[in-house]
Amino acid sequence: MATTVRSVFFVSDGTGLTAESWGAALLAQFHQTPFDRHTIPFVHTPADAERCVARVNAAVVDSLKPLVFSTTVDPAIRSILATANCIFIDLFEQTVPVLEEHLQTASAPAMGLAHGISDTGHYQNRMAAVEYSLEHDDGQSLRALSQADIVLVAPSRCGKTPTSMYLALQYGVKAANFPLVDEEFVDHTLPPSLAAVASKAFGLIATPQRLSAVRSERRPNSKYASIEQCRFEVAAAEEIYRRYNIPYADSTSRSIEELASVAMDAKALRS
Amino acid sequence: MATTVRSVFFVSDGTGLTAESWGAALLAQFHQTPFDRHTIPFVHTPADAERCVARVNAAVVDSLKPLVFSTTVDPAIRSILATANCIFIDLFEQTVPVLEEHLQTASAPAMGLAHGISDTGHYQNRMAAVEYSLEHDDGQSLRALSQADIVLVAPSRCGKTPTSMYLALQYGVKAANFPLVDEEFVDHTLPPSLAAVASKAFGLIATPQRLSAVRSERRPNSKYASIEQCRFEVAAAEEIYRRYNIPYADSTSRSIEELASVAMDAKALRS
Repeated sequence: MATTVRSVFFVSDGTGLTAESWGAALLAQFHQTPFDRHTIPFVHTPADAERCVARVNAAVVDSLKPLVFSTTVDPAIRSILATANCIFIDLFEQTVPVLEEHLQTASAPAMGLAHGISDTGHYQNRMAAVEYSLEHDDGQSLRALSQADIVLVAPSRCGKTPTSMYLALQYGVKAANFPLVDEEFVDHTLPPSLAAVASKAFGLIATPQRLSAVRSERRPNSKYASIEQCRFEVAAAEEIYRRYNIPYADSTSRSIEELASVAMDAKALRS
Repeated sequence: MATTVRSVFFVSDGTGLTAESWGAALLAQFHQTPFDRHTIPFVHTPADAERCVARVNAAVVDSLKPLVFSTTVDPAIRSILATANCIFIDLFEQTVPVLEEHLQTASAPAMGLAHGISDTGHYQNRMAAVEYSLEHDDGQSLRALSQADIVLVAPSRCGKTPTSMYLALQYGVKAANFPLVDEEFVDHTLPPSLAAVASKAFGLIATPQRLSAVRSERRPNSKYASIEQCRFEVAAAEEIYRRYNIPYADSTSRSIEELASVAMDAKALRS
């Protein structure tokens, strides 16, 4: 007999991103329970809400009512959603009245501000940062390097590129990234163009084992992927980071979200 | 006299991303009130929590107590944070007991699952998707195009690249993107390599005014940036999308988060 798993719906009048991360944080407190997760974004009209209710009701299995995490703002939409045969958890219901009391201000419901385009300045910054970071991926360009907010350096395959992209997309940080290569590993000296921006540098490493495994996917049985080479490069990178006083983190056990957050703090890029 | 603005702190034992998006959704309901926002991530130890309390207490201005949105899981840490002179809003406090009752399960506090590396399979997918999407940015490669989950097509400067990167980073979707160029605009026909993956295609447009403005930043007074050329390209792109039955969205009024979410739905990429 198949195990019966409770369905979870993240329902939003926007992208669903807030509903997903808020709901996931709550579900993480029940991480031994399996859930079947679905996102229903852009629920704007009563008809959208009715379709959503039908989908939730169709997901009732045995006595397991679906869980619905709702971040929809419009009270009319919410009251339709709440009629579903479900455990209905609303982001605003309990907290907004608390905030109203403390702030001594009535709330003014606003939809789609969380992940919309409303903060135009910040949004344009993020798009410009993506462009900058792509142009400066993997040491492709030295142009306008002085405009970088941060310069990631690391041996090949330690996670420079996705971390740079994340910094740009999420935070609007202009992130250049440069691979450390043979010359640097031998004499522990950065090239002048990089040394000039060492104060903006943040380093990445990985364990030699992880690095060798990742490199082996790309070039099996190469010197590049050998454990000896990886051990040599990681030790040399750490030596360079110490020499230039470059803070660094290990990407073996940290996600790009975590690496980006640590790097932001290390380079004082947060407000 | 300067206006006094209330400070807000998003405090987390992880990256702070959940605290930021959850708190921002709540603050959006008070969008006429200005707030001075700060994120304090990786609050793990009692000493971290004490430093956090000191920072919050230092931010009390006049009678305006700071707002603290906390997603820290450890009860010992939370109880230290709650001693700050602040309005303390906890993500778990009210909702976890409700979930415990409905799920008939005791919660098992778990830190850092939201944006950590714990779901290794999904994480590796995301990293592989970033690599794929970079390799297939702006029509750079036709290699392994059949492995794409989605193929974004659009005239130059409609937002293909940041949307592709976002799809890869956030959802682990392998997103290729291709610019529509002169030949296509004239005969409204996709080249064979693209026509072969038309079922995976999602189109972007922008208003001719917006497109002209964005292009003018890069090449002022060029034919490329002229309103006539932009009008021509947008009309031709829409004709192509209709002809090949390609769903599309306007990036003028939608953020990349919204475009990515719409595209995921249009191509049925959500579970």
